Amino acid sequence: MIYFDNSATTQPYPDVLKTYQEVASKIVGNPSSLHQLGTQSMRILKASRRQIAELLGKAEDEIIFTSGGTEGDNWVLKGLAFEKSCYGRHIIVSHIEHPAVKETAKWLAEQGFEVDFAPVSQSGFVDVEALSRLIKDETILVSVMAVNNEIGSIQPIAEISQLLENKPTISFHVDAVQAIGKIAPEAYLTDRVDFATFSGHKFHAVRGVGFVYKKAGKKIAPLLHGGGQESRFRSGTENAAGIAAMAKALRLIFDKEEKARKELLTMKKALLAGLSNYNDVTIFSGLENFAPHILTFGIKDVRGEILVHAFEEHDIYISTTSACSSKAGKPAGTLIAMGISQKLSQTAVRVSLDETNDMGQIEQFLTIFQHIYNKTKKVR
Amino acid sequence: MIYFDNSATTQPYPDVLKTYQEVASKIVGNPSSLHQLGTQSMRILKASRRQIAELLGKAEDEIIFTSGGTEGDNWVLKGLAFEKSCYGRHIIVSHIEHPAVKETAKWLAEQGFEVDFAPVSQSGFVDVEALSRLIKDETILVSVMAVNNEIGSIQPIAEISQLLENKPTISFHVDAVQAIGKIAPEAYLTDRVDFATFSGHKFHAVRGVGFVYKKAGKKIAPLLHGGGQESRFRSGTENAAGIAAMAKALRLIFDKEEKARKELLTMKKALLAGLSNYNDVTIFSGLENFAPHILTFGIKDVRGEILVHAFEEHDIYISTTSACSSKAGKPAGTLIAMGISQKLSQTAVRVSLDETNDMGQIEQFLTIFQHIYNKTKKVR
Repeated sequence: MIYFDNSATTQPYPDVLKTYQEVASKIVGNPSSLHQLGTQSMRILKASRRQIAELLGKAEDEIIFTSGGTEGDNWVLKGLAFEKSCYGRHIIVSHIEHPAVKETAKWLAEQGFEVDFAPVSQSGFVDVEALSRLIKDETILVSVMAVNNEIGSIQPIAEISQLLENKPTISFHVDAVQAIGKIAPEAYLTDRVDFATFSGHKFHAVRGVGFVYKKAGKKIAPLLHGGGQESRFRSGTENAAGIAAMAKALRLIFDKEEKARKELLTMKKALLAGLSNYNDVTIFSGLENFAPHILTFGIKDVRGEILVHAFEEHDIYISTTSACSSKAGKPAGTLIAMGISQKLSQTAVRVSLDETNDMGQIEQFLTIFQHIYNKTKKVR
Repeated sequence: MIYFDNSATTQPYPDVLKTYQEVASKIVGNPSSLHQLGTQSMRILKASRRQIAELLGKAEDEIIFTSGGTEGDNWVLKGLAFEKSCYGRHIIVSHIEHPAVKETAKWLAEQGFEVDFAPVSQSGFVDVEALSRLIKDETILVSVMAVNNEIGSIQPIAEISQLLENKPTISFHVDAVQAIGKIAPEAYLTDRVDFATFSGHKFHAVRGVGFVYKKAGKKIAPLLHGGGQESRFRSGTENAAGIAAMAKALRLIFDKEEKARKELLTMKKALLAGLSNYNDVTIFSGLENFAPHILTFGIKDVRGEILVHAFEEHDIYISTTSACSSKAGKPAGTLIAMGISQKLSQTAVRVSLDETNDMGQIEQFLTIFQHIYNKTKKVR
């Protein structure tokens, strides 16, 4: 099997599952319980929080555990909207955000917030100049992802940070779900970033767990009210086993991050070089300012689904541009936002690599690609 | 070790962890992915959903997976409030709800909803007559828990169902977190109940997973917007391993439910009989209309924490009345709502049993209790 759908989900590392199993079977208490079984459980949370904070160069109390990326994005957008609505009701999100941000922004618009969508360039980068023109006195939040999930473009977080430098009343949120472990932390966690969303299952942790970086002192309403866990920011009995497993996964990922990034880049370059040989192939992802693990392309007149299924017959797994929109059969939002025609957008498939892949798989992929390309020639 | 804090959290069954491990290690795909790895993962979700639905006598599409009880409660309350705000903005919740309901209701009040708290009797039951007087044309939601988490009183869900019989515009939500597996499903899932919340880790599943029963056709806004998973009601990559583990746990629980209920009742009766021998003991939980697994009591003038720690020295784990409020040192909300003085409330501790406990442990507990009772005599 060649699994090239790592941006949809990754498989938990065996060591991560071992940690999960150990905590789930041996750590009995509810962290909120007064007795020592509760304390034991709380200690696991504390150690995991410390480890994640250290890996990201942040403080412990800046890490808030959630159930995943979608909850993180929903929390930050809605939590800030409700927290700050008396100061202003204007929100800016980019046009190429993940649905967890975009659909949340649309819902906030229905609730009376004013939402602007910042446009992107033809190559898939947020237009910072255009974004700056959208800012007004009532703006309370700017939300831009770090790495686009559909084509891998790295968004100009540093430039936007600079733009927001002297605008302290605007919260800056970065959806870093596709960035962590794949690009340097400085690229998604600048000093100006107030909130950033992370999802465990995108970096070999288990599903159903994630975290939000919340800069110290930043106010935000909870999305989940209740028992007051996570310093009152996120109620609900803490998933100690999932959290410990996530901390473990992050350490494993960061241990080999630099090496992995080089290898990913080598693999992506080989893929790009291979695919560039074909006249009817359109490549939507570049190298410069693109994450090393995502490569999106299409064969002229061949719908993405057809390609996904053709590769599947050879035990190779890729995806149409995002898992979330694939079943709905919707064309890729990012490509449409870049001004690419619906027809061309519908050809797009995404190869998403990670450090569990190797060059042998790339070569095999390219061999099978040639076969599929030739087969689909007849229908073009 | 004697673990009598099962209402705070239970330990996952070994077979449940085995299921978790199997799915997490072998089922690779994101359920939203188009290829067969996605389909495999989706099949696990479907089978788990069917199993849970069948166990509860409901339809598959009436089960929506969440990250747990707190999310379920938050979703139902906020989702209904936002969905139905054009029809009315009045909400009724009981005075003894879990903080996940109560704090959410308070937040909705801050957002301009009108919230009434239905009073309870001196023994801890919602006063249906008083509740009926709170209902008005603008009422959109009534939320009452099935089994109180602090004293175990079974709330009159059937009577409230009758009260709401001819009021179809009012949604009826039941927080059934402490009820499932401990009392008969008819007692928390009447035909009139529109929504009910469940949490996996309270019935030996893993943490970070739960579900909401949503009656077919009932409209509600999502709390988590995004990729449109769970029929658009709850976005976020589905936690297939956690969900499969939860379905497994529920089947195991339901397999031995009747036997377990009998055994729990026998244990509770023995505890009650034993504790009744002591003059300075106040018992807050009864037998009739009380769940068989919760017994809350106190020793005159001895704060609950003292008792918790005293038992802990003998490797016996009980809690002050709820895990969520214990660290905050707040007196039990339910006891205060029942009209019990703050001073007496602060003596309360909760023994919460489940079918992993046995009569030998009850006897051991009573022996240790006598010892602790005598020891604390000096300070009374």
